[in-house]
Amino acid sequence: MLNYGDLVFLWSPRKGDSFLLKLSKGAVQGSRLGQLRHDDFVGHDYGDVVRSHSGEAFALLRPTLGEYTRRIKRNTQIVFPKEAGFVLMHLNIGPGSRVVECGTGSGGLTCVFAHFVGDEGHVYTYDRRQEFSELAMRNAERWGVADRISFKVRSLDEGFDERDVDAVFLDLPTPWDYIDKAREALAPGNRIAILVPTFNQIERTLDALRDNHFADPQVLEILLRYLKTDPRRIRPEDMMVGHTGYLIFASKSQEGLYDGVEQRRSRRGEDGAELEETPEA
Amino acid sequence: MLNYGDLVFLWSPRKGDSFLLKLSKGAVQGSRLGQLRHDDFVGHDYGDVVRSHSGEAFALLRPTLGEYTRRIKRNTQIVFPKEAGFVLMHLNIGPGSRVVECGTGSGGLTCVFAHFVGDEGHVYTYDRRQEFSELAMRNAERWGVADRISFKVRSLDEGFDERDVDAVFLDLPTPWDYIDKAREALAPGNRIAILVPTFNQIERTLDALRDNHFADPQVLEILLRYLKTDPRRIRPEDMMVGHTGYLIFASKSQEGLYDGVEQRRSRRGEDGAELEETPEA
Amino acid sequence: MLNYGDLVFLWSPRKGDSFLLKLSKGAVQGSRLGQLRHDDFVGHDYGDVVRSHSGEAFALLRPTLGEYTRRIKRNTQIVFPKEAGFVLMHLNIGPGSRVVECGTGSGGLTCVFAHFVGDEGHVYTYDRRQEFSELAMRNAERWGVADRISFKVRSLDEGFDERDVDAVFLDLPTPWDYIDKAREALAPGNRIAILVPTFNQIERTLDALRDNHFADPQVLEILLRYLKTDPRRIRPEDMMVGHTGYLIFASKSQEGLYDGVEQRRSRRGEDGAELEETPEA
Amino acid sequence: MLNYGDLVFLWSPRKGDSFLLKLSKGAVQGSRLGQLRHDDFVGHDYGDVVRSHSGEAFALLRPTLGEYTRRIKRNTQIVFPKEAGFVLMHLNIGPGSRVVECGTGSGGLTCVFAHFVGDEGHVYTYDRRQEFSELAMRNAERWGVADRISFKVRSLDEGFDERDVDAVFLDLPTPWDYIDKAREALAPGNRIAILVPTFNQIERTLDALRDNHFADPQVLEILLRYLKTDPRRIRPEDMMVGHTGYLIFASKSQEGLYDGVEQRRSRRGEDGAELEETPEA
Repeated sequence: MLNYGDLVFLWSPRKGDSFLLKLSKGAVQGSRLGQLRHDDFVGHDYGDVVRSHSGEAFALLRPTLGEYTRRIKRNTQIVFPKEAGFVLMHLNIGPGSRVVECGTGSGGLTCVFAHFVGDEGHVYTYDRRQEFSELAMRNAERWGVADRISFKVRSLDEGFDERDVDAVFLDLPTPWDYIDKAREALAPGNRIAILVPTFNQIERTLDALRDNHFADPQVLEILLRYLKTDPRRIRPEDMMVGHTGYLIFASKSQEGLYDGVEQRRSRRGEDGAELEETPEA
Repeated sequence: MLNYGDLVFLWSPRKGDSFLLKLSKGAVQGSRLGQLRHDDFVGHDYGDVVRSHSGEAFALLRPTLGEYTRRIKRNTQIVFPKEAGFVLMHLNIGPGSRVVECGTGSGGLTCVFAHFVGDEGHVYTYDRRQEFSELAMRNAERWGVADRISFKVRSLDEGFDERDVDAVFLDLPTPWDYIDKAREALAPGNRIAILVPTFNQIERTLDALRDNHFADPQVLEILLRYLKTDPRRIRPEDMMVGHTGYLIFASKSQEGLYDGVEQRRSRRGEDGAELEETPEA
Repeated sequence: MLNYGDLVFLWSPRKGDSFLLKLSKGAVQGSRLGQLRHDDFVGHDYGDVVRSHSGEAFALLRPTLGEYTRRIKRNTQIVFPKEAGFVLMHLNIGPGSRVVECGTGSGGLTCVFAHFVGDEGHVYTYDRRQEFSELAMRNAERWGVADRISFKVRSLDEGFDERDVDAVFLDLPTPWDYIDKAREALAPGNRIAILVPTFNQIERTLDALRDNHFADPQVLEILLRYLKTDPRRIRPEDMMVGHTGYLIFASKSQEGLYDGVEQRRSRRGEDGAELEETPEA
Repeated sequence: MLNYGDLVFLWSPRKGDSFLLKLSKGAVQGSRLGQLRHDDFVGHDYGDVVRSHSGEAFALLRPTLGEYTRRIKRNTQIVFPKEAGFVLMHLNIGPGSRVVECGTGSGGLTCVFAHFVGDEGHVYTYDRRQEFSELAMRNAERWGVADRISFKVRSLDEGFDERDVDAVFLDLPTPWDYIDKAREALAPGNRIAILVPTFNQIERTLDALRDNHFADPQVLEILLRYLKTDPRRIRPEDMMVGHTGYLIFASKSQEGLYDGVEQRRSRRGEDGAELEETPEA
């Protein structure tokens, strides 16, 4: 039976409008389908059909982690569920894992990590901006996973405090400057993931990964396309998100890995960006 | 220190060739870069640089769940990491969850669920084909999560044995025939995910979800594009996977949800497929 | 030297704002970068840098056909340049061709066909809605190709008047009802293109094409992704068009083509939508 | 009635196999559906159903320009129909146009331009490699448009011979070195298109376009996804082409266009690639 403090997800069959709320005594959520009064939902159970003050039906649902992170209170760009889920699969993360992350941002991915490492695991997240750390902490408390997270407010210049962690995630403007710090923290053979928004950042990140003896680099992007749900007129939505970022993965290995393997770095001229001759035309 | 029975992932910096092996006494893996003798790897640690019999370097890495499921022994189409990760985010799954699945197939997604529900959670997976169940069990043992899984070899015609589960996943040719069974198993307010390969299957599944009072239906597809990793010539790979399947999600609600909400089903004529007038032209 | 009646394309280097105008005596285009007075542009040449009344620079450019059709005055969904260009390549169209089209809609694709068939070619376009035909005619006059087009205001129920044409294009809600009419008009061995917005329409169109002895059916969709143009931060635009429509192509052949070739039509049951057993799971 | 020298496109309804042939006396094309003897097709008409020597039916169709360029004899990467069609729409090309191109490559796009400029137009194509020029000429003769093309075998270092052309297309490893030459050839207000395969090339090309007073830069990529054509199992093909290249467009304007408009070039440090502070994290 739902009570104050519980998270609920409300969805209207008429308009598809939806709201993710934490039930608070006396609180009211406005909507074009009538006022949603939190007090009316207390005592109900997940799955119930409830009504707005003007009588419109809503399904009262249990929020998913994906829905929660998509709607998280934020003052940064967030890591979206499509990337978060893929990262979960490709880092060595599971119940009991120790994960480090920088930067914290709004804490969406921090919550995801904390959700899946469980009570035996722990997440260490770094951000030099106090206000982000505080926002992320509130977001983690709301999802009920704050006690699995250490929030550290400082830059990465001195590196991470942790060693032998299961996974590292970097979401920074210049990740190439911190690959060595990530290397110090990560247990050998484990995997790092890095998110960058632009092409330009991929080049330098790949160079830094190789310089730091990381193996099996992969770069990828994920596109998500929703379809309209009218069964008689199935078609993709007219607009879709065209870009959130590029994910880069690699695994910590040792010096010597690339010995004798052709260095694919071009001969940069004095202007700093000399491309190699390309064979296409 | 690695020993027989451990899983390792080998990656060559020269060719990018890679192998996921379970170390077995005396076993040898052939490769175009020379024989990989399992005995040579015992006593090493994850992260080490090791060599094939002909002297080629390989990074000896810890396999990720994503890499494992991508390479799983299979005799069916598998659920790929990009979909598996998204499903994790959008079902109510985490350490401690109880999940039901049908069909088991090669057990890739079964392993993913079992990995993330941890020792306190459990996965119940159904398939009427004995040989699939056995293959999936071997795959789960290999990843070390078999004790978190109940394999049931029977059709879904009698429904699931479980009740009040946190999440249901269906991967069946005719999911619309089993939405009512899924409903019986699922706790109210929780979410189902369904994978179908064709457009044609989406229509009937959406109808069945509505008929069974499921709320918040979503249909989507995920596209994954890898990029080449030469830092001086960054570009997407020439070929990519164009399709794996459509994911359909919905949440269990109650009778009455759609009362008075226009049934979007068209007036089908006698030939069975009359489309409504479309406004495009 | 530009004069009244000429089409110009204005682009601002500061904001990227752009306008496609037909120069008219005394006309003024408002903009957030100041008024654009048509009279100021007369006497200039394409390529010149001109100024708004408040002094903002604009490049005065020659409009392309792509830009023109993207901005055409419309009261329907239009065929976008990405599809129009692909259709040009895959129908037997070029200078001198005779093309038939139904429906005319806002005339965007009609203009494209008329542009490329040149003075020796001709386009016959059908629409039962008088107001569309008139709008399309004005759009064609604006681009200067109206004299290469015959606008016919009637339904296709009696079929096309033309025979032995080089190409047919259909953009109709129920194209399957008119495949036989298209067949009558098209010269043997030539190709038809059909645009449909939904999955559901693809199925019946493919059936009708086969029933009418069309060969080499192809179905496809085209996705276009723009990138931001800041050279130091190259990345795709955040949002992109996720769907405009599916293009279906096929070539007119003869009775007997499919004799003995397994009819891939399923055994439909009485409810009209029985799927064949699918082998996936 | 078809005769020797005619181009035909053969398509099998059983397997979907297809062949694009120029009918030659005595020639035989092998296939897994039996020998295709050219002599058997002479005297037939486009659209006919013909047979291989072993009795398999083929539709005898008129080849489209798209199909022709997709199958062109090549020793380079080609410009694909999806890009060619888009370029047609966004350059000032039509019957009567004068177009310059560098490099010629295998001549696929050269044929496309020559096809659409008609007898009144002309294409000037440059390549420093004799063997490419010859191959392209043979490809153009095969499509019947060689007399509309001037093939020039030399590098672009001295620039183009032509002036005031309607459109320029560049497909070169270092297009930024030739933007000034393109500018000399292009009529003011007209548009250039450039194809590059890698991200790295986009940055320098955009810089060169701005330095040469080109307006309205656009960068984009086009993705084409084919669907399977079994009407009862409609779904995208399993594999698709993930990348062919990036198209860059811009229009020739004048000096002064960017005066006072913030130069979006970052403050590069001595290492040549200093990124601006990015606001993401």
